[in-house]
Amino acid sequence: MLEVDLNCDMGESFGAYTIGADEALLAAVTSANIACGFHAGDPGVMRKAVRAAIAAGVSVGAHPGLPDLVGFGRRNMDISPEEAFDLVTYQIGALDAFVRQEGGRLHHVKPHGALYNMAAASRPLACAIAAAVYRFDPSLVLYGLSGSELLAAGREAGLATASEVFADRTYQRDGSLTPRRQPGAVISNMEQSVRQVIRMVKEGTVLSLDGAEVPLEADTVCIHGDGAGAAAFAAELRRRLKAEGITVKAKR
Amino acid sequence: MLEVDLNCDMGESFGAYTIGADEALLAAVTSANIACGFHAGDPGVMRKAVRAAIAAGVSVGAHPGLPDLVGFGRRNMDISPEEAFDLVTYQIGALDAFVRQEGGRLHHVKPHGALYNMAAASRPLACAIAAAVYRFDPSLVLYGLSGSELLAAGREAGLATASEVFADRTYQRDGSLTPRRQPGAVISNMEQSVRQVIRMVKEGTVLSLDGAEVPLEADTVCIHGDGAGAAAFAAELRRRLKAEGITVKAKR
Amino acid sequence: MLEVDLNCDMGESFGAYTIGADEALLAAVTSANIACGFHAGDPGVMRKAVRAAIAAGVSVGAHPGLPDLVGFGRRNMDISPEEAFDLVTYQIGALDAFVRQEGGRLHHVKPHGALYNMAAASRPLACAIAAAVYRFDPSLVLYGLSGSELLAAGREAGLATASEVFADRTYQRDGSLTPRRQPGAVISNMEQSVRQVIRMVKEGTVLSLDGAEVPLEADTVCIHGDGAGAAAFAAELRRRLKAEGITVKAKR
Amino acid sequence: MLEVDLNCDMGESFGAYTIGADEALLAAVTSANIACGFHAGDPGVMRKAVRAAIAAGVSVGAHPGLPDLVGFGRRNMDISPEEAFDLVTYQIGALDAFVRQEGGRLHHVKPHGALYNMAAASRPLACAIAAAVYRFDPSLVLYGLSGSELLAAGREAGLATASEVFADRTYQRDGSLTPRRQPGAVISNMEQSVRQVIRMVKEGTVLSLDGAEVPLEADTVCIHGDGAGAAAFAAELRRRLKAEGITVKAKR
Repeated sequence: MLEVDLNCDMGESFGAYTIGADEALLAAVTSANIACGFHAGDPGVMRKAVRAAIAAGVSVGAHPGLPDLVGFGRRNMDISPEEAFDLVTYQIGALDAFVRQEGGRLHHVKPHGALYNMAAASRPLACAIAAAVYRFDPSLVLYGLSGSELLAAGREAGLATASEVFADRTYQRDGSLTPRRQPGAVISNMEQSVRQVIRMVKEGTVLSLDGAEVPLEADTVCIHGDGAGAAAFAAELRRRLKAEGITVKAKR
Repeated sequence: MLEVDLNCDMGESFGAYTIGADEALLAAVTSANIACGFHAGDPGVMRKAVRAAIAAGVSVGAHPGLPDLVGFGRRNMDISPEEAFDLVTYQIGALDAFVRQEGGRLHHVKPHGALYNMAAASRPLACAIAAAVYRFDPSLVLYGLSGSELLAAGREAGLATASEVFADRTYQRDGSLTPRRQPGAVISNMEQSVRQVIRMVKEGTVLSLDGAEVPLEADTVCIHGDGAGAAAFAAELRRRLKAEGITVKAKR
Repeated sequence: MLEVDLNCDMGESFGAYTIGADEALLAAVTSANIACGFHAGDPGVMRKAVRAAIAAGVSVGAHPGLPDLVGFGRRNMDISPEEAFDLVTYQIGALDAFVRQEGGRLHHVKPHGALYNMAAASRPLACAIAAAVYRFDPSLVLYGLSGSELLAAGREAGLATASEVFADRTYQRDGSLTPRRQPGAVISNMEQSVRQVIRMVKEGTVLSLDGAEVPLEADTVCIHGDGAGAAAFAAELRRRLKAEGITVKAKR
Repeated sequence: MLEVDLNCDMGESFGAYTIGADEALLAAVTSANIACGFHAGDPGVMRKAVRAAIAAGVSVGAHPGLPDLVGFGRRNMDISPEEAFDLVTYQIGALDAFVRQEGGRLHHVKPHGALYNMAAASRPLACAIAAAVYRFDPSLVLYGLSGSELLAAGREAGLATASEVFADRTYQRDGSLTPRRQPGAVISNMEQSVRQVIRMVKEGTVLSLDGAEVPLEADTVCIHGDGAGAAAFAAELRRRLKAEGITVKAKR
């Protein structure tokens, strides 16, 4: 039976600042990646996001990032594997405290932004992050880019992993995402996005930008929460997936 | 049988900066309050401090502070009880992650600096902190100033508490500490400090600055880690307490 | 000839976060208080705000705040006068760098949030801030609450000052603002707000909440930038002030 | 007539944390690079460092770094040239405010740590930094690694530049520093260090690690302030330079 998870970043507000439409998205996704205070989020925001996700029956994940609030965790930083291990541990623990207090159970970890990208390409960083997650709680699911070092490191460490794919991005022949600066990187047509996801889930392939059929594992689909139409797209995608007989639920 | 705990703040280094003589102190104290990254400490420092404390057989506590790194958490801030609840939760969780990964078990929570002082005097803040600790883990011990609102709130919440006394500070008739700006606030004579502690533990009283016998509970003695002679004083105090038949161990 | 300044806080976005409708407000106000990175703002936001204000012909002021990004500088902190002196200096200098690079000239300084309120009531803080401004540039105008210690300290220091009044707040018999938690503190009726300002400027008085005529100096009116209708209100106020023969311009 | 400047990083303490032996070093060097609060330093530390440098007759420079306090500005970050422009501007302005208040005059700018290294290799970053300095004050001297993109960009921008050399590091045939991870990168022998500097100043060359004579400009020598013997080395170097008839003074 075919299954797929829809995940979305949440809890990215900070102090007096608001980002995202968390409430609307919680109605459509099956797992939430909640920022942990380094690239976004603060203790009050984290509690509210955790509480709302639990109330919505959505799986709660930690979304640790680089210590770069002004850069929203999107700028690469040369951190050592040891530093990655420690800052992921810190952030998972902080988020888990709210989850425990609110009566939930932490489900997964998905690194954010530059940390996610760096961990996709660097084996040492990937291993450090996977080890931090495993040593904190071996039952957690590690989310990472399909085909990434992070997923490989997670499997080696003994973690369950979720291979993440993108509805609104095109792929290259080697299974990597087309870089944003290249033409054709982003899919703006909703129908095309939906069909790409359905194909990924049903056939385990994606058509590359230059037309090749590329194998790829699609355990979870990233819903970008910052776009205005994010919640609408997520709801439509969910409806269409169900219509195809695909169960939408968080991976265990 | 008489018992008392000797506690010390630790893990207060940050990045390239070092404060404290953690290693030396770990040989003398029975519980360590480890900074959690808000007033001091960073993920790497926290791991090292947790690891060292566990290796030394010292009880590990979280030492949450106000979000004021430049002020070392010593400046009062008008935070709401809800904000206190959340920032204590965040910091306990972050520290607990390292404790769990290192194979230990979190033993207590002691607020730091201005948060400690504010929670001693403000019932709403005290209740918020006690509730945060209890909801995180009801088996934790809450450390607070003898006679403080924090201890009262902890007991009401159902937590075990440890009433903290000071070896190097004089007391007023009402059981409060003589404010630092008043003459006679600090005891610089080591023998006098040692005798004050022994009296506190054996008789449950302290002689106030103006000579009155004041009742007070002495579960744990604060060892200030920043003084050069801190480790030497702690070792001497420990020796003298044992000579008096007093067991030096962390409170359960 | 009657004159009044309309001022508004600006440049309070941060990294990926946006607050305020700076562009719309710049069309209506005559001076802009630009955040300096402690309570809000970052170097990139500061440059854009400075550039936009200069392009709009609006007087540029520094808006220094407490080092409390998560609290948006709205939580009182026990900082010493010396700390206030130094953190105001730092922030003025940082903002002035952008003003100089963009070909403008710094016009005024208005402390933000809790720093503004603390400096209104505390003479030592007020003197420290006034001294910091004066020693940086004695030709700057110091903005402060009408009747505040800050204005008194500024005058004593030899600075030009601008006495700030509020269009949407009611006053007490002693000239202070009605605290927000009391009923009747906020004026939501636009016409009533406009009339209050016109009276303040023309007659130098305000009707207190309980009906007394209270003298007060109105050099500059604070326009709250976060409300949706802020730009519309500012434009309307400006139109009405002109209709009364009052020149709307920044104080020199 | 031969001249050379001895420069040292200063004001790198932060809050309760102390780094460096600023007072001792001020007696030996001719220019001080003062941290600006991003990688180290805080407003109070900056004032004290500026005041001490001015009192010692040492030229005061701004030492801007990356926004990475926990990493002490030593970790590369992928910042854009525009971000570099703005964060250098912010920090120069902040430091300049203290210099102006203390009656001094800002003399130079030397980027710190990873920003220094990135600007040595990246022309776009180098140009952004040079432009920020020039637009702030075209009379400032830009300090950069000998042979670096930063110096080239500074000269192109119209700035006076100071080519920095190292007493305790060996060089490669191409004039670059031997990377620290390679054997022979660091010179621990004081006499060898002194002779290397004298040769650099008198002959404009350095012997590379593999024995080649490499041309190099030596306007200023970096004295590392964190080593215990830094002040002693600086004093000895200064004595020896004078003995060789070389004037030790800040470059104008």
